[in-house]
Amino acid sequence: MLFLGLFVLILAKEAMVDVNCNPDLASNKLSLDEIRDSLIRQEDTIVFCLIERAKFPLNPKLYHRNHGFTGSLVEFIVRETEAIQAKAGRYENPEENAFFPEHLPRPLVHPHKYPKVLHPSGASINMNKPIWDFYFNKFLPLLVADGDDGNYAATAASDLACLQALSRRIHCGKYVAEVKFRDAPHEYEPPIRSQERDSLMKLLTFEAVEEMVRKRVEKKARVFGQEVTLNNTIDGGKYKIDPLLAARLYDEWVMPLTKEVEVEYLLRRLE
Amino acid sequence: MLFLGLFVLILAKEAMVDVNCNPDLASNKLSLDEIRDSLIRQEDTIVFCLIERAKFPLNPKLYHRNHGFTGSLVEFIVRETEAIQAKAGRYENPEENAFFPEHLPRPLVHPHKYPKVLHPSGASINMNKPIWDFYFNKFLPLLVADGDDGNYAATAASDLACLQALSRRIHCGKYVAEVKFRDAPHEYEPPIRSQERDSLMKLLTFEAVEEMVRKRVEKKARVFGQEVTLNNTIDGGKYKIDPLLAARLYDEWVMPLTKEVEVEYLLRRLE
Repeated sequence: MLFLGLFVLILAKEAMVDVNCNPDLASNKLSLDEIRDSLIRQEDTIVFCLIERAKFPLNPKLYHRNHGFTGSLVEFIVRETEAIQAKAGRYENPEENAFFPEHLPRPLVHPHKYPKVLHPSGASINMNKPIWDFYFNKFLPLLVADGDDGNYAATAASDLACLQALSRRIHCGKYVAEVKFRDAPHEYEPPIRSQERDSLMKLLTFEAVEEMVRKRVEKKARVFGQEVTLNNTIDGGKYKIDPLLAARLYDEWVMPLTKEVEVEYLLRRLE
Repeated sequence: MLFLGLFVLILAKEAMVDVNCNPDLASNKLSLDEIRDSLIRQEDTIVFCLIERAKFPLNPKLYHRNHGFTGSLVEFIVRETEAIQAKAGRYENPEENAFFPEHLPRPLVHPHKYPKVLHPSGASINMNKPIWDFYFNKFLPLLVADGDDGNYAATAASDLACLQALSRRIHCGKYVAEVKFRDAPHEYEPPIRSQERDSLMKLLTFEAVEEMVRKRVEKKARVFGQEVTLNNTIDGGKYKIDPLLAARLYDEWVMPLTKEVEVEYLLRRLE
């Protein structure tokens, strides 16, 4: 019985560790699968973050510019927290992009060696301004209830978790673009040479895949956002966030911005 | 159709906002229900945090004392992040307890008015040292796989989220104790006057309730930790964390430490 328990634990632990977008490009086929697995796993993270942010009401004082800081309280908290994480080497990982990349302190730790797989001129693309904008100005008011419960620090920490999860997902577009380019350079090179943004966008758009992602995210919001009790049947119909809103987040912002990252990356791919 | 959508959204938003432990004690009966609802909701947060921490391997460099900091890298990140959150008023909320409460900066924002419901001498109980100890030294090695993927900052942020969620849950014991005391002072006063720790512990222990909590947490780990695909039946049997380990976390550490908070609180309740 003890042996069986240990075996189950070992199996569980082996299945647990996340795959990164940052692939080993020795084998392209494996890598595209790895990136897809990572994007799917990141959906769970994003849905968890949304559910946790929705615990708090809007707490609008966080977003006003009247605290005597430069900017709002949420800007202060995000900027300062990013600075600490920079010291711990967060932005040495090419999958991570800061919201306030100016004046980030240098890492205090010996940085990990990440494989260099991205084209240098694409590596610096940072889509965090539009992410910040849609998250606070368009999405958040749809996600949370009005009100002020005073939990500003916890709410801002929760906003930061959402922003970082969305940013990581959207910037994985660089890896998607790199792998797609390596898989079929003959397809991508002509529109890159003529800098045809629309043609590239068409090459990167798969309606059926996008529909599947929307549906899966909606299902995840339903599964992870349900109230679990010992007696209920799974999926009792009462959710902590609106599952359709999670799907809309992907439809209106996450997938379009990911493709924009891909296009921007490809436009610089032959520099 | 649009109207229906809006109606569903409004319903979802009303159901969303979290209840706090910190109750309005005008009505004791309501408050005990509120605290129970909050503890149940916090189980979801804790399970989400565990699942997110388990994305990363152990990353043992975070916990070594050889970076030239005072203490380990994770200590540095937790201490510095707490300082930022203190500036945003996190520790003005009597439900929140810092892991490094010494030298916390004062809030830069006008603090929210939290209802004063706790007895002053119990309010200062801080169980974070044993929480830190069991989390890093006993629980974490069971939760995550061995290995180093270099994501130290993200891993430490994830550790902090786990620690804060566990700390908040365990310190809710103060509110539980306060409400229980107000409900039946005649039962609690004699063992408090004679400072009988064991009698208090007995009064606070309900085996059947604890068994229900363990089972519910295990079920939550199974529901929230499953791999959700469009085709699978719910609960495919493959989990991101071991559901039994989540139950064990509650059994061995969360519930005993919550009761220890309750006992410590009650021992000071008549001061």
